[in-house]
Amino acid sequence: MPKQIEPVALDDAGSALVIVDQTLIPNETRYLRLTTPEETWEAIRSLRVRGAPAIGIAAAMGLYLGVKGSEAADFEDFYHEFRQVKAYLASARPTAVNLFWALDRMEACLLRHRDRPIPEIKEALRAEAEAIREEDARANRTIGEYALSLLKPGMGILTHCNAGALATAAYGTALAPIYLGQERGYNFRVFADETRPLLQGARLTAYELMQAGVDVTLICDNMASAVMKNGWVDAVFVGCDRVAANGDTANKIGTSGVAILARHYGIPFYVCAPTSTIDLRCPTGADIVIEERRPEEVTEQWYAKRMAPEGVKVYNPAFDVTDADLITAIITEYGIARPPYTESLKELFRRKEEAERRA
Amino acid sequence: MPKQIEPVALDDAGSALVIVDQTLIPNETRYLRLTTPEETWEAIRSLRVRGAPAIGIAAAMGLYLGVKGSEAADFEDFYHEFRQVKAYLASARPTAVNLFWALDRMEACLLRHRDRPIPEIKEALRAEAEAIREEDARANRTIGEYALSLLKPGMGILTHCNAGALATAAYGTALAPIYLGQERGYNFRVFADETRPLLQGARLTAYELMQAGVDVTLICDNMASAVMKNGWVDAVFVGCDRVAANGDTANKIGTSGVAILARHYGIPFYVCAPTSTIDLRCPTGADIVIEERRPEEVTEQWYAKRMAPEGVKVYNPAFDVTDADLITAIITEYGIARPPYTESLKELFRRKEEAERRA
Repeated sequence: MPKQIEPVALDDAGSALVIVDQTLIPNETRYLRLTTPEETWEAIRSLRVRGAPAIGIAAAMGLYLGVKGSEAADFEDFYHEFRQVKAYLASARPTAVNLFWALDRMEACLLRHRDRPIPEIKEALRAEAEAIREEDARANRTIGEYALSLLKPGMGILTHCNAGALATAAYGTALAPIYLGQERGYNFRVFADETRPLLQGARLTAYELMQAGVDVTLICDNMASAVMKNGWVDAVFVGCDRVAANGDTANKIGTSGVAILARHYGIPFYVCAPTSTIDLRCPTGADIVIEERRPEEVTEQWYAKRMAPEGVKVYNPAFDVTDADLITAIITEYGIARPPYTESLKELFRRKEEAERRA
Repeated sequence: MPKQIEPVALDDAGSALVIVDQTLIPNETRYLRLTTPEETWEAIRSLRVRGAPAIGIAAAMGLYLGVKGSEAADFEDFYHEFRQVKAYLASARPTAVNLFWALDRMEACLLRHRDRPIPEIKEALRAEAEAIREEDARANRTIGEYALSLLKPGMGILTHCNAGALATAAYGTALAPIYLGQERGYNFRVFADETRPLLQGARLTAYELMQAGVDVTLICDNMASAVMKNGWVDAVFVGCDRVAANGDTANKIGTSGVAILARHYGIPFYVCAPTSTIDLRCPTGADIVIEERRPEEVTEQWYAKRMAPEGVKVYNPAFDVTDADLITAIITEYGIARPPYTESLKELFRRKEEAERRA
């Protein structure tokens, strides 16, 4: 496959967590070897590793590394140490649900092996952390395959923010079809919205696609309309933070605007969503609370000097909700959902439960 | 009226051109007194004074100041000096049509007074420069009155880029109804798109509206959809760089996207256009050439360090074309044009010619 960044992995000896320091991208590609819980905690807290799936993987691997050297002689002592490291890592970020999910899954693994010798438990924990990573990569690859089935070689694709390899174990979600297409010579032309105010498109998406040899062009968010009008965009792919039961989708601020432009220009608009981000208990987008962030992200961050008058009011929502009727399809690892989503998303979850029963 | 910035004016003694240095906004409001043609040339070239109307006014005043101290005893010597200063000032910026128009108008004034004594010619030139400034302010005020007739107190208004007082003698075009509303206690709530990549909205629009005491909120360009969806916007006002005979309008990049969002949310979208920017010889927007600017404006400018990978491709058009069918009305100093624009714009020009015949 094309050269993708590997954002988070255990080294071959299983003795260090190796991450690419995302705070230095795009100016530097520096890999860090983390061996202690303190180093892993700091890397998560400081966004050196970011993206909900990547954080979960890093925490699971950090937890394994944190107990790997334990000299505990019996299970109770080992479990005590395990829980200390787990609680510590869980305090690194307050809201990333994947963090807690991954740590809980590690604990469940430990408890399943409680009757085994300590060295064997350690091996099981390593295998579980690797499994979390592999399952994420596999789900993303499957999303990519479904998405790729909607595309033809040479197409132009526009994406917003970063739902790429850097945020996950591999492939990303919205960028997964682009990486798979790259493996197969599809020669997509990708347009990356820079995605103000945090510039994830400029810093991360442009970077990881360039690394993989993809033909990527960076634009300001307000240029998407011109690019579409020029006829350069055949499909839009975005990731998501939460999908409601009716298909309304919360994602990075600006996504709803891109969807409206796509509708205007007759371009299909696709949301790539692992089923873990679909929340059937959330009826509609109106039930999703939108985080507002500090004004300085708009007026000061990244700049050599302040770029707006002191004291100006700023509205800085981190996300917006794209109405379901603007979304052509929602692509998951269990297939492609089409409108009406209230039915099609439920059907996907039936398929998922069946698959899990069979497994 | 509320405190507006006065971007370009002669001082009371007629001995200096006083401008606010726009390169220092929003961090500093510094007025410069320019007395020589060299200082005026540098201020135009370095964008200390910017905006096509403001540049024309500055050049006319700079030309007057450049010949005011002339010791020429006869008209031919005086005219020779005049033409030297005129040619020099005309070389300050290559494309601003108002620059050449204003300088030519000064020369026509001089030639009308060729039989008068030199001191009288100098006075006529000063009066002509003042007239250029006053006519611009009056046209903008008239545009503002027409625009205000479309609005109600307390409304929310969204604007893109800077079509404000700073770019003109006073009032601006798109911001004119906001200033007039402010004089009359309309209490508009204004949302200013920051307008990447050059941030005219953050640097200039937010600044001048705050100075005037207007309730202004700065947003990133990609937040316009969320703000509209929240129900906070009752009308959009933008300026323009060129309007074609069919109403297609070239303006700052991102304008067409705002127009599409406004259409989606059922919000009227108004273009404020002095008749000098309406080009009836240009049939449609397809005939307007769009300037592409250098990638560094997107990847480096304003930043403490580069924010996108080295060598990334960038598409950086300075303008886009908003299709006429997305424009609710075009507001000029001779009235409000409604679709179909091919007829209504012609009618406006008939009205203008009549007014000029009567004058």
